[in-house]
Amino acid sequence: MAELLPPTPAETEVERRVRAWAEVQRARGKRVALVTSGGTQVPLEARAVRFLENFSSGRRGAASAERLVQAGYGVCFLHRARSVFPWARALPPYGSSLLDALRVEAGPAPRVTADVDAFPGLVPALQAYRRAKDEDALLPVEFSGLGEYLGLLRAAARALSPLGSSAMFYLAAAVSDFYIPASEMPEHKIQSVDGPLQITMKMVPKMLSPLVKEWAPEAFVISFKLETNPSILVDKARQALEKYRHQVVVANVLDSRRTSVMVVTRDSEMQLSLSDEELTQGVEIEEKIVSHLESRHTAFMEKQPLIRKKVI
Amino acid sequence: MAELLPPTPAETEVERRVRAWAEVQRARGKRVALVTSGGTQVPLEARAVRFLENFSSGRRGAASAERLVQAGYGVCFLHRARSVFPWARALPPYGSSLLDALRVEAGPAPRVTADVDAFPGLVPALQAYRRAKDEDALLPVEFSGLGEYLGLLRAAARALSPLGSSAMFYLAAAVSDFYIPASEMPEHKIQSVDGPLQITMKMVPKMLSPLVKEWAPEAFVISFKLETNPSILVDKARQALEKYRHQVVVANVLDSRRTSVMVVTRDSEMQLSLSDEELTQGVEIEEKIVSHLESRHTAFMEKQPLIRKKVI
Repeated sequence: MAELLPPTPAETEVERRVRAWAEVQRARGKRVALVTSGGTQVPLEARAVRFLENFSSGRRGAASAERLVQAGYGVCFLHRARSVFPWARALPPYGSSLLDALRVEAGPAPRVTADVDAFPGLVPALQAYRRAKDEDALLPVEFSGLGEYLGLLRAAARALSPLGSSAMFYLAAAVSDFYIPASEMPEHKIQSVDGPLQITMKMVPKMLSPLVKEWAPEAFVISFKLETNPSILVDKARQALEKYRHQVVVANVLDSRRTSVMVVTRDSEMQLSLSDEELTQGVEIEEKIVSHLESRHTAFMEKQPLIRKKVI
Repeated sequence: MAELLPPTPAETEVERRVRAWAEVQRARGKRVALVTSGGTQVPLEARAVRFLENFSSGRRGAASAERLVQAGYGVCFLHRARSVFPWARALPPYGSSLLDALRVEAGPAPRVTADVDAFPGLVPALQAYRRAKDEDALLPVEFSGLGEYLGLLRAAARALSPLGSSAMFYLAAAVSDFYIPASEMPEHKIQSVDGPLQITMKMVPKMLSPLVKEWAPEAFVISFKLETNPSILVDKARQALEKYRHQVVVANVLDSRRTSVMVVTRDSEMQLSLSDEELTQGVEIEEKIVSHLESRHTAFMEKQPLIRKKVI
């Protein structure tokens, strides 16, 4: 379901949780970022066996969340279940690699240890995670389906609205553009003997509109745009800024998304890229994105009272 | 792509690897099972951002692979990347739970240890995995896309064909029934401004036909059937047995798949279920499925020379 329904009890509970957590962050003088990450799932059947998925490992969202915490933000991490998780990226991939990295030390009280030599990034990652946890700087919230994502985004946005311009929305999740309305969905698994499959999907209403206009009108809002065709990229970013009146679009092309992005605002566009040297050193593009957006956020906050006065 | 193309170099390499491994299993007097597990992914665009996915965590395949190794089989585990993996199920879920279970013991040579008290199944699982690995009893092979799955299934089936009736095919993967032929696929990301999305998908040719007729004609072949509508379940299983001439269909309904299945053959049907007591004790239905199929496989092997004589 992609229509925005009245909040479920679970969403109301998340809103309460995020609001209380944000209050603590504000009391500590911290800015807050809501990072959305991973792809949404759209069922094709009511008792669903098949789903439409948007491609996204969640790597960008997870890497950005790490950087934002490091930059002093409290981060609410609204992510697809089992997508890449901040600092867990330092672990070997789930499956045989993960099992191979763990050893049982036999004895009356057997211990399980991880092979830290094979994964040198693991110790610093676990320490950074522990620090973030002790400081309450990371609040993870999970979603799977599109409807769940939309409801939780609304809940979190409303909860962060009292923070005004010190809240950043970093909308890196890959949200489906299409869905099948519940009323048009077959009840049971689509039978393959019925011949070729015809699917008609409706467009998902863009949540940027109510987010910017109603839920958190003073916040600093960044959306992400992924295209495969580089020639339409900046135009699409500008169209989005015109339409939704938010602050920044980070635009990127599928093939080069890990090494280069365009940061587009209404009156500027800036390319951020990794040099060959930085690539060899293992620098991540998210380091540049977050550092750039942090200063833009600062400038936005400083201008904000002025703008509001003007409006009044 | 879902048409079966000539083998790629990667598939030829997998065929070689499985053949060599199967030779070792046979020399040790072991039966071999090919377990397929997890769902396949079907791209909707040539440079794909969107995919059609079949629901499957891979839990059934992974649990069955563990049981089959325990029963003395060598298991080739053809699974969806990042789906549930044998014995890795004992670990906490990926994300904050997994990070929370790991502790850094500081010091000049810092160590990472896992909280074995919180996850009592972890030590025996790691030990069982290690044993399987030392005995070369588990050969994992990964896929993601439908085309990759089909190619690797063919490669593995050909590699196991020399084992004759001592090879079991345990086809638990959730394979897409539909795909978009490459020639009809849009090159770039489908634009949402173009209005509602119309998708027409073709039926995937069933691989059970060539598997049973050509690739491994003497093997013991089990397919799985998942439906949401219980009233058509056994009929659909019988139709499949009639059509593909393989040995067993394990039929199950989405809602009750973890507690009850029907094992259907051409001349019998048998329900396997967990009692409330077994459920409380944490018994898994895969224990019953594997134990039942193991005896059927024995009976099949014993009858085989007779059948072949008759045919000759």
